Amino acid sequence: MKLKTKIYTIETGGPLIGIININDARKLTIGALDRVKAKKGKIETVIAVDISIQEKGKCKSTEICEGEIGLFIDVAKKLNVKNGEIIEIEHEPKPQELDYIKEKLDGQELNRKKIHEIIRALINNKLTEVEATYFVAGCYRNGMTLDEAQYLTEAIVENGSRLNLKGKILADKHCIGGIPNNRTTPIIIPIIAAAGLTIPKTSTRSITSPSGTADVVEIFSPVSHSKEKIEQIVNKTNACMVWGGTLDLATADDKLIKLERPLSLDPEGFFLASILGKKSAVKSKYILIDIPTGPEAKIKDKVKAKDLGEKFVKLGKRLGMKIKYIISDGTQPIGNGIGPALEARDVLMALQNDGPTDLKNKSIYMAGLIFEMVGIKNGQERARNILETGKAYEKFKEIIKEQGGNPNIKIDEIKLGKYVHSYISTKKGKIIAVSNKMVNKISKTAGAPTSKGSGMCLNYKTGDSINKGEILFTIYSENKEDLDITKKLELDKVYTIK
Amino acid sequence: MKLKTKIYTIETGGPLIGIININDARKLTIGALDRVKAKKGKIETVIAVDISIQEKGKCKSTEICEGEIGLFIDVAKKLNVKNGEIIEIEHEPKPQELDYIKEKLDGQELNRKKIHEIIRALINNKLTEVEATYFVAGCYRNGMTLDEAQYLTEAIVENGSRLNLKGKILADKHCIGGIPNNRTTPIIIPIIAAAGLTIPKTSTRSITSPSGTADVVEIFSPVSHSKEKIEQIVNKTNACMVWGGTLDLATADDKLIKLERPLSLDPEGFFLASILGKKSAVKSKYILIDIPTGPEAKIKDKVKAKDLGEKFVKLGKRLGMKIKYIISDGTQPIGNGIGPALEARDVLMALQNDGPTDLKNKSIYMAGLIFEMVGIKNGQERARNILETGKAYEKFKEIIKEQGGNPNIKIDEIKLGKYVHSYISTKKGKIIAVSNKMVNKISKTAGAPTSKGSGMCLNYKTGDSINKGEILFTIYSENKEDLDITKKLELDKVYTIK
Repeated sequence: MKLKTKIYTIETGGPLIGIININDARKLTIGALDRVKAKKGKIETVIAVDISIQEKGKCKSTEICEGEIGLFIDVAKKLNVKNGEIIEIEHEPKPQELDYIKEKLDGQELNRKKIHEIIRALINNKLTEVEATYFVAGCYRNGMTLDEAQYLTEAIVENGSRLNLKGKILADKHCIGGIPNNRTTPIIIPIIAAAGLTIPKTSTRSITSPSGTADVVEIFSPVSHSKEKIEQIVNKTNACMVWGGTLDLATADDKLIKLERPLSLDPEGFFLASILGKKSAVKSKYILIDIPTGPEAKIKDKVKAKDLGEKFVKLGKRLGMKIKYIISDGTQPIGNGIGPALEARDVLMALQNDGPTDLKNKSIYMAGLIFEMVGIKNGQERARNILETGKAYEKFKEIIKEQGGNPNIKIDEIKLGKYVHSYISTKKGKIIAVSNKMVNKISKTAGAPTSKGSGMCLNYKTGDSINKGEILFTIYSENKEDLDITKKLELDKVYTIK
Repeated sequence: MKLKTKIYTIETGGPLIGIININDARKLTIGALDRVKAKKGKIETVIAVDISIQEKGKCKSTEICEGEIGLFIDVAKKLNVKNGEIIEIEHEPKPQELDYIKEKLDGQELNRKKIHEIIRALINNKLTEVEATYFVAGCYRNGMTLDEAQYLTEAIVENGSRLNLKGKILADKHCIGGIPNNRTTPIIIPIIAAAGLTIPKTSTRSITSPSGTADVVEIFSPVSHSKEKIEQIVNKTNACMVWGGTLDLATADDKLIKLERPLSLDPEGFFLASILGKKSAVKSKYILIDIPTGPEAKIKDKVKAKDLGEKFVKLGKRLGMKIKYIISDGTQPIGNGIGPALEARDVLMALQNDGPTDLKNKSIYMAGLIFEMVGIKNGQERARNILETGKAYEKFKEIIKEQGGNPNIKIDEIKLGKYVHSYISTKKGKIIAVSNKMVNKISKTAGAPTSKGSGMCLNYKTGDSINKGEILFTIYSENKEDLDITKKLELDKVYTIK
């Protein structure tokens, strides 16, 4: 069937779709979301169709009428076709990947070939969002075996870009997140790199938390770099601390995450594949996983934490990685500041051998474990030594400089929100709990992470004794209205005092 | 956040979507498929966002750049906003329906309120396709209870349009489909209506079969009418035989069916709700369900057929309907012709008390059962009498005339495809099976249902004895090329001869 194109100048970046009129669909005996082959001369591509339901004689210019086909610019470019030109459409059988997706939804286990084909189709925009959603639903509802998680990780890596690095021993660390601050990355990375190991760290920005590692590092330097620039930074300094978002290390993963968001699904197999896929793409071999555990953390108890940790270890082994995990204290924030600038301040203090001891000690502990994983003895001592002698800070400055930042920034040059509110204790007692949830809520309401100087700073942690009239925490905001709204939150629920 | 609109002149008819740049999404701390409230003056509407991933400074005019929001015309109309105008966007919490959908995906049973809210959100384009797909996946994977099927049916009816009819006793029939021809509807409807009962029959067009009832009736008269016109036809003649597609009796059902197509899913709860929802919308109370059963039918064995039939009966009772079902012979086609015109010819012959006896007898049997359901004694005799005395044919002509067709069309005026091929028996023997699948395939390849005169006509059925050299069936096509391709199919597999 010949149809006249109506081209819409939007790049969807998504599945390849054409819109045809219901009468033409009937003639082709196809329905919504079926496939057709679209041809212009020798160029052809398979697209899914959406149906415009306007009946004969009632079709307006804003609609797709009989004899027309609506194309987004992605498809138009692929076919090298201009607005108003004629293309040929014919029926195309359903892609076999749909059978595999149905098998997964039905509870069957998929083999390597099937998972690879599904991911390849996803990457090449051959699956519609509806079809890919069934794959997510199947993996969520029926779970994934370790085999399936392995195939998925491999498929994600194969279909993403990779870094080409010179280092011989590539290490990495990853925290599954959920705890305010806990910003060990910008302290651990320089310690490891200063010892001569290679540690190409890619981090995320915040999506729902008051700050992500990339948001914190951005206080010191740009974090969005090309693949080539990152290779250059790592090959020169042994490390990087960059945002992974522009790197396309795991395009398939990004597409799946988008589909998981509406229902906040996070099938464990996807979660494992997402993390280890990115590590595999930068060729990291020795990886330490931090699993903070606590009632207001992502993982609530130690049994679940151990179960997850063991899965990381097993899957890592299949992928040629050596993985160690720690079940860490996730009952309260690590560090004092929450929000990009406030956390950057904690990081800078720790590198100068000052600042919150919990953050410093956890960073030393984790760096030490990484040392021991690669065979360096007395890892803890070594890590402490590198930090306390200032070698880690020197390495940090080197990395920040190479990333185009200001290595010599002073702690009081880090700009905090100018609207400030201190919360004063109304009683004497002992702190028996800190609420991660309240800390996150207050910091976000104050403007973090969008306003980099907004957030809060805690003066006390669990176990501390306090007196009436003492400042328990201080809220910072770049915006007076935000501060006013934040002040109305239940600020007394940050600490449980007895 | 204020954004400048970029309006695309496509009516999607689907979920309300806005496209924003990744940098603005970050500022709003939202991700793909999250909700925002869009405001222009006093008008506001909630839309889901899609994210355009162009980074700062690299944005082209065909893309959504920082400070812009791409809107399809549906949303633009709703907000009464023109291209280039400014609208205000703010973060909107996730709709509660998403929690209900997740519960269903997790295997929980949904109550009336939750199912109604999901269907209302679906109808009002408040759910994205991804979200609605999770609902379908959950219902498919976990099944639906009879309660859930009832709530779904009620929700479909409540959110669709309804017919306003005068008749006191409203009957209907429904076949679950899958058998070639089996075109009892245009014979049963006039028999029932001639007896003074009201039978407002809406049918489907073919999607994957060689012909739907609406395609056959269209040989005699138009089948696409407005709600008001259908009410007029039924109030005048006691009956109608129309296409249900333009009636919006079950908009929610249409939306769900679209999402089921890619994986050919058909959750039983949806199937029941889809059929009984449409009957409920036209207020039918006495319904006969035909469940053809056989190895190449939709239902393969009698146990499953009985199970399905009982579910219809139970669900019908909850909806205030009296339902009876028959498990009919689905091992071979009913009637001789396959394809719209060839089936119309069988129908017209039967109404003139001629033609294929299997089709005629099945129609009488079913009409008789409907009579008995409403309390008319000796239903079979009554039905046979109405058909054989020509009263049914008179009623048929009355309905066709009212639907704007030609009531006096003669059998040889029904136009068949002019390219013809007869398949000759190469041996003597007895027919022990007819393949529904081969019959469908041949008829569709010959051009049915798009070419109304294309299809095939069977001369024999199971049990018949045949001689070498006899014509077993004849293929008709409106197109010589189609006939040539059809002739290359495995025509010897239509009949199994022993």
